[in-house]
Formats: sequence, C-alpha cells, structure tokens
Amino acid sequence: MNFTLNILGTASALPTVSRYPSAQVLDVRGRLFLIDCGEGAQMQMRRMGLSYLKVDVFCLSHIHGDHLFGFFGLLSTMGMMGRKTPLLIFAPRSFGPVLKFYLSYFGEGLQFPIEYQPLAMKEPEMIMDTKAVELYSFPLNHRIESFGFLFREKEPLRNIYKDSVGKYGLGIAEMGRLKNGDDIVRDDGTVIHSEDVTYRPYDPRSFAYCSDTAPFPELPDWVSGVDLLYHEATFPSSMAEMAAATFHSTTVQAAECAARAGVKRLLVGHYSSRIKDTRPLLDELTPVFPRTMLASEGDVIEIPLRKYTG
Amino acid sequence: MNFTLNILGTASALPTVSRYPSAQVLDVRGRLFLIDCGEGAQMQMRRMGLSYLKVDVFCLSHIHGDHLFGFFGLLSTMGMMGRKTPLLIFAPRSFGPVLKFYLSYFGEGLQFPIEYQPLAMKEPEMIMDTKAVELYSFPLNHRIESFGFLFREKEPLRNIYKDSVGKYGLGIAEMGRLKNGDDIVRDDGTVIHSEDVTYRPYDPRSFAYCSDTAPFPELPDWVSGVDLLYHEATFPSSMAEMAAATFHSTTVQAAECAARAGVKRLLVGHYSSRIKDTRPLLDELTPVFPRTMLASEGDVIEIPLRKYTG
Repeated sequence: MNFTLNILGTASALPTVSRYPSAQVLDVRGRLFLIDCGEGAQMQMRRMGLSYLKVDVFCLSHIHGDHLFGFFGLLSTMGMMGRKTPLLIFAPRSFGPVLKFYLSYFGEGLQFPIEYQPLAMKEPEMIMDTKAVELYSFPLNHRIESFGFLFREKEPLRNIYKDSVGKYGLGIAEMGRLKNGDDIVRDDGTVIHSEDVTYRPYDPRSFAYCSDTAPFPELPDWVSGVDLLYHEATFPSSMAEMAAATFHSTTVQAAECAARAGVKRLLVGHYSSRIKDTRPLLDELTPVFPRTMLASEGDVIEIPLRKYTG
Repeated sequence: MNFTLNILGTASALPTVSRYPSAQVLDVRGRLFLIDCGEGAQMQMRRMGLSYLKVDVFCLSHIHGDHLFGFFGLLSTMGMMGRKTPLLIFAPRSFGPVLKFYLSYFGEGLQFPIEYQPLAMKEPEMIMDTKAVELYSFPLNHRIESFGFLFREKEPLRNIYKDSVGKYGLGIAEMGRLKNGDDIVRDDGTVIHSEDVTYRPYDPRSFAYCSDTAPFPELPDWVSGVDLLYHEATFPSSMAEMAAATFHSTTVQAAECAARAGVKRLLVGHYSSRIKDTRPLLDELTPVFPRTMLASEGDVIEIPLRKYTG
C-alpha cells in the first residue's frame, strides 16, 4: 500500500556534478509512474532499484531537454530488455514529433505498444482512472506548453464497525452496500445509514507535480490540500527577475503556492546550477511555509498511510 | 603537451549501476575531442573536470543510442552556456536526420555554428589536419554503418644537436631548413644532411578508437603500431556466437587485433551488462596480448611523451 515518491533528478537546465535533470518516479502500490525523464533517468532508476518493467505510464510535463532527454535511452533499454507490456505516455502535443522521430530512427525492434495521449486542457482534467488512483493533468505557466500532474488515491471501501454487525444483524449483501457508502432501507422500514455503521479505513493520499511554472492564480486551487506538493523553486528570491523572465518560480513563490493551497507538505527542486548549496533556500521557504523539504537525488519520500480502526 | 584519454563510459547497450554508455574524451595538448556521446556524457565530463568549451570536435562512430543519446543534452548545455565557437562533427551519413531533428526542435537559441561532415569512406582517410594532430577515420564492421578514428600526433620539428651548430657554423636559416628535415647544399658544395645534425625531440603519439565492430582482416593494418588502441570487447570468448550475431568482438578477438597490429597498449571496454565483474576478462586478454587494460569510468590514461635530448 505504498505511495512513495523517488527523486531521480533535481537540476534545472544545466546538470551539475551531483544533480541530474528532472525526473521522478511515483510508486503507487507497486505500480510506477515516471514523471519527466531528464538525461540519466535510466541510470538513476537502476541505482535506486526501480524496475523499468513496473513503469507503464510516463507523464512528461513539457519538451524542454532537461525534462525529456532521458526518454530515448530509457525507451531503448525497455526495448532491449524485451518489454512486451504497453506503455502509456501523457505529454503535450509538441511531444508528438519527438516520439515520431524516435520511433523512426531508433524504434526498430521495440516489441511493446506505445499509446501517446496528447495533453491540451485549459483546466484540470482526469486523464487516467485506475483501481488505485485517479490521475489529473492541468496547464502550467511556462515558456512553452507545460502541464502539471495530480495523483489522487481512490477513496477506499468503508469498513464496518465490528459492533455494528451484531447490533443490526447485518447480512453479507447489506455489508457490501454499506461499505460502498450506500444506505439501506429494510423491508420493515428500518434505515441503516452507511456513515453510522462504517468508517474510512485510511485517508486516500495525493501528490501533485508542478514543474516548470511561473506562479499563476489558479494553481493553488488546483492542488488544494494535497499530501505532498512538488513545486519547482529554480531561483532564490533574490533572482525574482530572472525567474519572471524565464517563467520559473522562486523559493518564496513556491512556498506561497503551498500556503495558499493548504497542502500538507511541500517539496522543492529544479535548482538553478548557480545554487551550489541548497540549504540556505530553506531560510526563505520555511517562514512562508514551514513543512518544506529540499529534494535531493536518491530521496525516497513516503506519503504515509493514515489508518483508522473501528 | 599532454595526449590523454578520459573514459566517460564503458557500458554497451544497457547501462548498469556503475557503467555509463560509450563516451571518451581525448585531450591533445589541451584541445578536447569527444569520441562518441552516450547518455550522461555531459555529467561525466563535469565530474572529470573536462571543460565543455574546450571540445570543438565530436567524433561519432555510429548512431546506436548507447553511443549517441548524450548528444542532445550536451549540445543544449553548450548552447545555454553561451558557446560561440564552432563545433565540428564527424559522423556517419545516418546522423544527418538526427542532427536535423535536434536542431529543428531543440536548436533554438544555439549561437554557435555546427559543421557536420558525413563519413562514408571505404578505407582510412584523413578527415582533419591540425597543428598538433592528424585525424583519420575508417570503416568498422557493425550492424549499421560505423567508423573508427585514429589520432596521430604530428611529426615534430627536429632539434639540432648542440655540437653541430659550432662544428658546421650553422646559420639561422640553415637551422630552420635542417629542423624541417631538409638537407643543405652550400655554395662551396658542402652537403649537410638533416639526419646527421638533427634528432627527433619526441616520438609522435597515436590513439585509435574501434567500437563497435566485429573482427575483419584489414583492421590490424589500419591501426598498426599505435601507442594506444581502444577496441571494444563486448563479450567474453564463451559468448563468441552472440558476438558474431551482433557484430561485436570478444575479448580474445580484441586482443588478437592488438597483437596483429603490434600496438603498444590495448584498452578494452563496451562491456555487456551480463559482465558484472570485468577482472576475469584479463585472464582471456593477456595471454593473447599482455599489455592490456580494462577501461573504467573516470580513468585518465596518459600516453606518455618519450623525449630525447641531443
């Protein structure tokens, strides 16, 4: 039942000695979602023990090289490893020609189907609905067409309080409907309300990914209340002009978004290569939003499951 | 006056936890030649302290991804760092569409000219002639069009034995001609032979790069006598069938090429991901060619300057 974010890269445009370009893997109960795919993503996955075979969804935010140039190598490696299972790719429309180029010149021998779903929405839309999670995408505010992603764990079936079974003499069919959130009206007119006899066994978890983007008014609403918000913080606030000119965010802007959105935790990354030591960024971030973490290569960030028992 | 090979990657098709795909940098007296450009080459260059700005020649052997997919990121980084100096690329004809694709979708903002010289020779040809070095290319025997590279340091100007200056009463103009290897005939009929009064101050150095290739009869002649031969050894000799099927070489085949070519030292790499520990490969290599080294990421291999004094 894990819901775990793995950080493969935290660099922005220019990688450094210790920082790889943007790439993350969200593990939702053993199913891996690759979010952006900067150069070296496949090597970083191998180092972190993340199986290529368990990734069947790529979420690519935009086609700047530092979010994309690991795609070619990773796809070729999947092919050489004999992958047969389909791969689903969510990416902006501008990714179409990139994929076509790759497949024309390097796609020979790939034995798995690739389904590419171009993104073009103007506001949040659900793009995938699995047993475990709903995946949404929404536009960001960058120099080129860019999209963020929001993963919402499905609302779990409710559990029945142990003492309710005897108290109401609940049958199996009744319990099924009550767990599903439906109320019951018995033949004798008795009404049993689901919320009186059941409880939510855990809080569904959520993660939002926002990179690259300048601030814009709708974003906090769109990621409101998530357990973990990854938001780029390319520049310190002293470089706000540079951030505006390049459609990026500063530390303070990332923290303001988190505060307005009322998220549980904020994670920042996509650091400018000018930032040698990231720790001073926290001095700018935490006064605005205290529960902030700095992403580093190799980080494994578990979003804990909050369980309840009846 | 250094002539130094830097190993960025030694993996073959599949990178491993510790091995990057093929890329090397030859430093000829401070001028850097990038030879193949597997994914992660730019990160490895940064780790090894190799300046992007000092590379003005790329030598790409063939367009399999493990020799190529670092190209996009490195070029973009050069662009973002404000490079203005021209870049010369030697690569097979099949690289043309790859370069065109890159420039169409990611080339915006590049402020340096790129000169691409397609390779199509059937036997060794000089492709570049600089003050310090002559660069040759020659075909290899791989599944797709592939080329090797040979770097030969220029023959140095000869030095004059100190005692010859007084003995023959040599003038400055005469010394210039003698250093150049020309004999002198004075007005009085005296003949002064360059080789009697001059000596070679150092042996010009040479390096050949052969990857990827199956053995073929001409190769040893083409790399005959070089100071350092890099030859792929993708498979141990127990996997000779696999090597043949994929147009690669085994350890023994690489060593046989070195022995026939009479090179001074052999360096092998491009290891199959099946090879976890490379050290046993030496047991197959050194009986055939004793002066063999196993390439590893981060290796800096100096080809020493043998100096003579008169």
